Amino acid sequence: MNVQPRTLSGFMELLPRQQVLMESIMSTLREIYSLYGFTPLDTPIIEASEVLLAKGGGETEKQIYRFTKGDSDLSLRFDLTVPLAKYVALHYNELAFPFRRYQIGKVYRGERAQRGRFREFYQADIDVIGDGKLDITNEAEIPAIIYQTFSKLGLRKFQIKVNNRKVLNGFYAMLGLQEQSGDVMRTVDKLEKIGPEKVKTILMDDLSVSEENADAVLKFISIKGSNTQVLEALEAYRGKSELFDQGLDELGTVAKYLSAFGVPEENFAVDLTIARGLDYYTGTVYETFMLEHLEIGSICSGGRYDNLSEYYTDKILPGVGISIGLTRLFYVLNEQNMLNQNRNTAPADVLILPMTEDLSPAVELATRFRNAGIRVQLYSEQKKFKAKMNYADKTGVPYVIFLGEDEIKDSVISCKEMASGEQTNLSFEDTLDRVRKGLETKGNGAVILE
Amino acid sequence: MNVQPRTLSGFMELLPRQQVLMESIMSTLREIYSLYGFTPLDTPIIEASEVLLAKGGGETEKQIYRFTKGDSDLSLRFDLTVPLAKYVALHYNELAFPFRRYQIGKVYRGERAQRGRFREFYQADIDVIGDGKLDITNEAEIPAIIYQTFSKLGLRKFQIKVNNRKVLNGFYAMLGLQEQSGDVMRTVDKLEKIGPEKVKTILMDDLSVSEENADAVLKFISIKGSNTQVLEALEAYRGKSELFDQGLDELGTVAKYLSAFGVPEENFAVDLTIARGLDYYTGTVYETFMLEHLEIGSICSGGRYDNLSEYYTDKILPGVGISIGLTRLFYVLNEQNMLNQNRNTAPADVLILPMTEDLSPAVELATRFRNAGIRVQLYSEQKKFKAKMNYADKTGVPYVIFLGEDEIKDSVISCKEMASGEQTNLSFEDTLDRVRKGLETKGNGAVILE
Repeated sequence: MNVQPRTLSGFMELLPRQQVLMESIMSTLREIYSLYGFTPLDTPIIEASEVLLAKGGGETEKQIYRFTKGDSDLSLRFDLTVPLAKYVALHYNELAFPFRRYQIGKVYRGERAQRGRFREFYQADIDVIGDGKLDITNEAEIPAIIYQTFSKLGLRKFQIKVNNRKVLNGFYAMLGLQEQSGDVMRTVDKLEKIGPEKVKTILMDDLSVSEENADAVLKFISIKGSNTQVLEALEAYRGKSELFDQGLDELGTVAKYLSAFGVPEENFAVDLTIARGLDYYTGTVYETFMLEHLEIGSICSGGRYDNLSEYYTDKILPGVGISIGLTRLFYVLNEQNMLNQNRNTAPADVLILPMTEDLSPAVELATRFRNAGIRVQLYSEQKKFKAKMNYADKTGVPYVIFLGEDEIKDSVISCKEMASGEQTNLSFEDTLDRVRKGLETKGNGAVILE
Repeated sequence: MNVQPRTLSGFMELLPRQQVLMESIMSTLREIYSLYGFTPLDTPIIEASEVLLAKGGGETEKQIYRFTKGDSDLSLRFDLTVPLAKYVALHYNELAFPFRRYQIGKVYRGERAQRGRFREFYQADIDVIGDGKLDITNEAEIPAIIYQTFSKLGLRKFQIKVNNRKVLNGFYAMLGLQEQSGDVMRTVDKLEKIGPEKVKTILMDDLSVSEENADAVLKFISIKGSNTQVLEALEAYRGKSELFDQGLDELGTVAKYLSAFGVPEENFAVDLTIARGLDYYTGTVYETFMLEHLEIGSICSGGRYDNLSEYYTDKILPGVGISIGLTRLFYVLNEQNMLNQNRNTAPADVLILPMTEDLSPAVELATRFRNAGIRVQLYSEQKKFKAKMNYADKTGVPYVIFLGEDEIKDSVISCKEMASGEQTNLSFEDTLDRVRKGLETKGNGAVILE
């Protein structure tokens, strides 16, 4: 030994049984994204810096892992959107539009290390990219995908909050505040924290908004209620801004198709306080909250944008997409004890302990089980019986099979279910049947418990 | 547009339908590795340089992507073995041994760019790590895993070649050549290229091997035949070196359990010319060749090693593992037209084309299909009919559903199978049935065609 082994801070490295839970989550995401017609994509983690940083500047640039190798100025991707923008521009002629892709991959941001913040983390993104145009139905479909994803994972108490940037920008334009709309939105964003009085003061004193306009903003932002109620209240503003009217129509369309898309009313809310950043999004915006863990912030966010690849092509490529910060979500779920530790996370379903010198019968038995789709580990180490059973306990394997001379002679299999301690002596077929039935019913609940 | 989009040379970036084939391969690997009791692992791509390069020096060091970020000296992993060595040493107390893990992940080597060489590429590794000891049965199981993996992928004409380093080292020790065994093996490795006469000359002239010994080496290395014949021929050398005898026993054990592990004789060969690097491996070594594409070299290699984590811990952790260079394999299979392009690589199974103003019936239909597990894309763009059908062709979607007023009124679904052109007007249940049966039989052959 000459170096102390360690893993860099800000880099998640899971123990085996936790990793299996993470894999289950990823597998569910792939399954649901596929159901909605998204195709998997895999882009490089390293890109040329001039390509990755084409947009330039900004807060993120300091966080980027950038370095040279030979003559090349390289950077690690900091999200999956910029690589998608490059991909679509580069392969434009070979793609069919609307292009629907998902990508689950690691991204890198050299943020200041702190608990629950990661420098290497998975994002799970879906995007629909149109060529020139993209129908609003795509925006209406997104809440369904979010709902199905989290429901399938086992989450119950969550709400998808939706707004439309055109509604916001149109409203501010009505008041003649289009120039300051960014600053106003940032101020309004603090509503929950600092209260309406303080917001009004900032609007008037710092942003020179008239008292009348400040009151109008506060009134607008306080529109609450069921989706129908919010949409009805917004109707009162119709006819004063083309942009607002368009946004309201879009919001109406998104809400209209919800039930046809299978999204229950209680998991969805039109919420005028959701603004979602400032420059990028131009239409529907989404945030998703765990209702009993609002402190976590949004666990799935995104929205509609007008021009994905403007830095790489003159083609106009509008899109809509959402992203899950998977590593952080996993970390939080684990912290909250919401991961289902009762799931079968063992490396194998059956552990075979041979009790004979010649291992051929044990090997043959393992092969038969594997051919039947059962995950088998053959344990052939020379250890005491107790050490072998400790191994079974530690790995969490649900069934242990003991194969000695007697069992071989009688063509029976002695199989112990570890949870109940129940041991049976049955034929291969009956044992297989018992194991299969057991695996179906045990340890296969949802990954997330709520 | 201000930057020309490009992907770095040496970095694979697949088009959607190729990516689906790649995903199928990865999914098969995960499935087979799981059947043999391996648990998935995911370690960071970035490690501290002092940790990753603990072994130091060597040819690889020049190829490593190494850089600083803040005060940290960082490197991208160049294989999955060193991170495993770190992981096992770091988490030793929390793991159960033998520890069986698989990892499919990207690794980085800044090699000179050339066709078919990649700087970012996937490795798919499995390893079994013992604590202090590791039974030979684990080495005997490896050919079964290789066989099942490639068979399931669709490969037919391949052979797993196996040798044992103790046999080689023991044999050279018999001749008093243990000091030069590395040089001798490297020379013998050239046998196929330069012929036995030239090998003999090099052995005698450059390595000062006596003529008698050179002849003995050539005789030994020329032992060929069935596994039984080779093992019998090796028996003639027994009793002169303890190491050799041990290696021969191990080779015999590996061969003995082959059929019980389900490996056909023709897919396996004991081959004394396989040496597999020089320092690392200490027992059984494996290489795998596509019989009609020997020029590619081994597509799956590995072996037994005595001490995985010697740089990180004083614990002795022997292991056995194999690795598939997945990105290169995929590249080669594609070049050789061996990828099954008839598989269903479309983003969806069904494309729904709504023909009505109100999309609710189309959305509801999409939801019903998705709830039944069918991958559906709802195509809602305002395009001419021909453009919509072109989209169906380009994405390769197997079924298209037209949903107009008539169909909605009559509660029938008009569904066209794209391959045959056959169009049916059936109820939802019958359409679902037709689609399901169709998907089962079409486009689901193995990923690799041979």
